[in-house]
Amino acid sequence: MDNKEIWLETLITDTPQEGRELAIKMAIKSIAAIQTDAETRKKLRSDYANDTTQLIASANVIAIEFQTIAAANNYWKTEK
Amino acid sequence: MDNKEIWLETLITDTPQEGRELAIKMAIKSIAAIQTDAETRKKLRSDYANDTTQLIASANVIAIEFQTIAAANNYWKTEK
Amino acid sequence: MDNKEIWLETLITDTPQEGRELAIKMAIKSIAAIQTDAETRKKLRSDYANDTTQLIASANVIAIEFQTIAAANNYWKTEK
Amino acid sequence: MDNKEIWLETLITDTPQEGRELAIKMAIKSIAAIQTDAETRKKLRSDYANDTTQLIASANVIAIEFQTIAAANNYWKTEK
Amino acid sequence: MDNKEIWLETLITDTPQEGRELAIKMAIKSIAAIQTDAETRKKLRSDYANDTTQLIASANVIAIEFQTIAAANNYWKTEK
Amino acid sequence: MDNKEIWLETLITDTPQEGRELAIKMAIKSIAAIQTDAETRKKLRSDYANDTTQLIASANVIAIEFQTIAAANNYWKTEK
Repeated sequence: MDNKEIWLETLITDTPQEGRELAIKMAIKSIAAIQTDAETRKKLRSDYANDTTQLIASANVIAIEFQTIAAANNYWKTEK
Repeated sequence: MDNKEIWLETLITDTPQEGRELAIKMAIKSIAAIQTDAETRKKLRSDYANDTTQLIASANVIAIEFQTIAAANNYWKTEK
Repeated sequence: MDNKEIWLETLITDTPQEGRELAIKMAIKSIAAIQTDAETRKKLRSDYANDTTQLIASANVIAIEFQTIAAANNYWKTEK
Repeated sequence: MDNKEIWLETLITDTPQEGRELAIKMAIKSIAAIQTDAETRKKLRSDYANDTTQLIASANVIAIEFQTIAAANNYWKTEK
Repeated sequence: MDNKEIWLETLITDTPQEGRELAIKMAIKSIAAIQTDAETRKKLRSDYANDTTQLIASANVIAIEFQTIAAANNYWKTEK
Repeated sequence: MDNKEIWLETLITDTPQEGRELAIKMAIKSIAAIQTDAETRKKLRSDYANDTTQLIASANVIAIEFQTIAAANNYWKTEK
């Protein structure tokens, strides 16, 4: 794992939509942590972007990550 | 990812059923965030709408998204 | 999506068992929201009712939906 | 769905282990709700009992159901 | 199901690591509850221990079980 | 299972990013607990690092583990 760059400073976002974007980022970063070669990841991209089974599985990951982010932000209802 | 349009302003909905609709929307938007080409998504649609394995996997995603929305709305029991 | 009919007015049920029934209904409605043609759904039914992999995947969805319903009902322990 | 028999009166169990048993029962009942024919279910049983992929998927369902039961029982820590 | 032996007296463990061990045990016991024949389970073991898809699916189950255990132990932060 | 080494002393981390790293570690340790032979794991690695389905499934596990860690750390919002 060589993602030494700091990419996750906080789970707090201003809006729910930014929370969605963070959820997607977290999912992508997990994949990058396992397949560390960026070139390989690029080649693999079309494998899942055109396979509905994998698109749905990706949406599953995003939904789980978003649960965490939404809870962290108290569902953007009150001050955090 | 080019869904710059704001489509998720709040997790709060008036009714549980609107919460279901939002859960479905969130699942669809996740897929759109990965497969950004609308034409391709349209072509892929029949792939999953006729494959029960994928329909069930989609229902799994919706169930997870709905958990988040239901918690955000305090299960539509009390004032939010 | 043309399930304009109101089928989910509340997550509150009188008993845990009714909560299970609602969980199953929610899973089925998710599938109906994606595969909107009732005739097609009917034809697809035997695909998953006889395939244990899909039966188990369906049970996974029901388990997630039930988590939400059980939390909404405070696990049927106290007044809601 | 013809499981009209009342099989889930409460989520409360005396011990964690009884909670596990209930989780397994809930998973089995979900499958019975979709594949309503007992004879067919019996025939299908060997399909998953000998397929590790399906055994693991079943364990996933049981784990989710148990989460709900454990929360309902306040993790068997204090009075319920 | 013939796991009448009492193997789960409590969800409380002294340390997070013991919580991990319990999570693994719970996953294994679920499989044993469905495939009750120990000899068969032994034979099936190499099926999943050498298949990364199944190893990952097993890790998914362990992660869910651990969520429950960690919550039961209040994340090993304070007295339980 | 022969991971007698203590690798999980606490779920508390200083930052969300360290929480991600711990989530990845937990997922990897689960796999090591089932496939105990390090040589075999090494050989299997290319199986999943180049298969997007398995990369996504791995990301699913990481997302679940991270939920637990994030809750343990109160989402890194307040003192723990």
